[in-house]
Amino acid sequence: MTMQTVSLNRSYGGTQGVYKHASRATGTDMTFSVYVPPHQDGVRLPVVWYLSGLTCTHANVTEKGDFRAACAELGLIFIAPDTSPRGADVPGDANNAYDFGLGAGFYVDATQEPYARNYRMWSYVTEELPQLVADQFPIDSNRQSILGHSMGGHGALTIALRHPDRYRAASAFAPIVAPSQVPWGIKALRGYLGDDKAAWRKHDAVALIEDGARFPELLVDQGDADNFLAEQLRPELLQSACTKAGIPLTLRHQPGYDHSYYFISTFMADHLRWHAARLKG
Amino acid sequence: MTMQTVSLNRSYGGTQGVYKHASRATGTDMTFSVYVPPHQDGVRLPVVWYLSGLTCTHANVTEKGDFRAACAELGLIFIAPDTSPRGADVPGDANNAYDFGLGAGFYVDATQEPYARNYRMWSYVTEELPQLVADQFPIDSNRQSILGHSMGGHGALTIALRHPDRYRAASAFAPIVAPSQVPWGIKALRGYLGDDKAAWRKHDAVALIEDGARFPELLVDQGDADNFLAEQLRPELLQSACTKAGIPLTLRHQPGYDHSYYFISTFMADHLRWHAARLKG
Repeated sequence: MTMQTVSLNRSYGGTQGVYKHASRATGTDMTFSVYVPPHQDGVRLPVVWYLSGLTCTHANVTEKGDFRAACAELGLIFIAPDTSPRGADVPGDANNAYDFGLGAGFYVDATQEPYARNYRMWSYVTEELPQLVADQFPIDSNRQSILGHSMGGHGALTIALRHPDRYRAASAFAPIVAPSQVPWGIKALRGYLGDDKAAWRKHDAVALIEDGARFPELLVDQGDADNFLAEQLRPELLQSACTKAGIPLTLRHQPGYDHSYYFISTFMADHLRWHAARLKG
Repeated sequence: MTMQTVSLNRSYGGTQGVYKHASRATGTDMTFSVYVPPHQDGVRLPVVWYLSGLTCTHANVTEKGDFRAACAELGLIFIAPDTSPRGADVPGDANNAYDFGLGAGFYVDATQEPYARNYRMWSYVTEELPQLVADQFPIDSNRQSILGHSMGGHGALTIALRHPDRYRAASAFAPIVAPSQVPWGIKALRGYLGDDKAAWRKHDAVALIEDGARFPELLVDQGDADNFLAEQLRPELLQSACTKAGIPLTLRHQPGYDHSYYFISTFMADHLRWHAARLKG
């Protein structure tokens, strides 16, 4: 697999890169960012995957995420994929919706037309991109963790629950925890996966836990001034599922915080420390 | 004076605000950002002014500057003005240049037409905006400092050198230190101030020092991979002027760093600690 370098910038003693490659999974060019902290030659480093929310590209967290200081200190590689395929030939949404199509891949492999060819973000994020970066960066693939925001929190939780042996830690900022039960998720799962509710359950953190998926422990931060809290996010559903399943969940309601990167960046270093502690050794 | 709130976001325990007001100085609406860190009611806090570089608005540093963690820890208010007047009636540049007109006010009061009415960023940043924010935020006006990047580093240095009693600290990232001697500066000073070189010297840090201006000490970080270093920035001219004048200058050449916010953000917390130490008491 080949990869083009879009940009490289020295930052916090390491290198913030942006890269592009032709993706087999999506049939499009895909852009992603990788921060490699300062490190000794020959060392392999743990990697944290960050999945972004609706409307985002790799750039939002790369510019606004305040993650580099902590990654430099903790010795973490930080990877941010895009949130959907993009390009002139990629079907978007007839209504130019912000919550479906471009910028809204929901980390599933679509089975419905016209999306099935390109909207394969599950395969992209769990298979193709990990293989690509393992070849190109000093990554210790035995030490991976995952986190995300909103739609990306949904992605992080579902991917971790279905790959508990691959990821040593998982956390989320304001995640969509039960897409089968909220408007954003119902629209996306129906649009990409059709009406088969069994298929939806494999992409719904709460349903996965109800159906037996387990993870050692989870961390979630949620702002209590988040406009999407009651209708789209509903962290109480995750709390309830984790309690029933015996999964330790640290769910923190952060007073006054909204859904923005001003919220995410505030708690980013804290999440990265939590990940680093679980990625050691 | 009245002020409209554009946005408020909780961040690092404080509040990141963006505000708009009708400016007397520029004859336009002006937008700026203010971060107020967590603090006890009734306390007045020191304030750090950040002046941005060419093409920027308040938003660049507000989103990419990595300043809030340090400001929250150190108890600093952080204010970021815009870099020029803007609006349908504001003369820009016939060539849509990035280095003159909109986004490129150079922190001077223009005397040349058609710029003299609106391009009054010196008065705006040193007089009008300080008065406005002193009324609206819990600022201790006896504890102010100033820093900036590139064109904004030029602004910070010239403003500090002409107001050594007002600012307790001044620093810069990759500043234009001698605009009278470099293409960006010559174009701007001639365009805004005309051919009177005596007027230019009041907006040139090196010339101000040569002409007797003093400041207790200065801190400058400069990336050695900065594309603008040799032609536009020339920190050696500041070094030489400071040495002759007996002004202690800490000039750090940072290996591998460019002119971007990836550079600025890396050293932002360090600058803020340096400011905070001088703003105490």
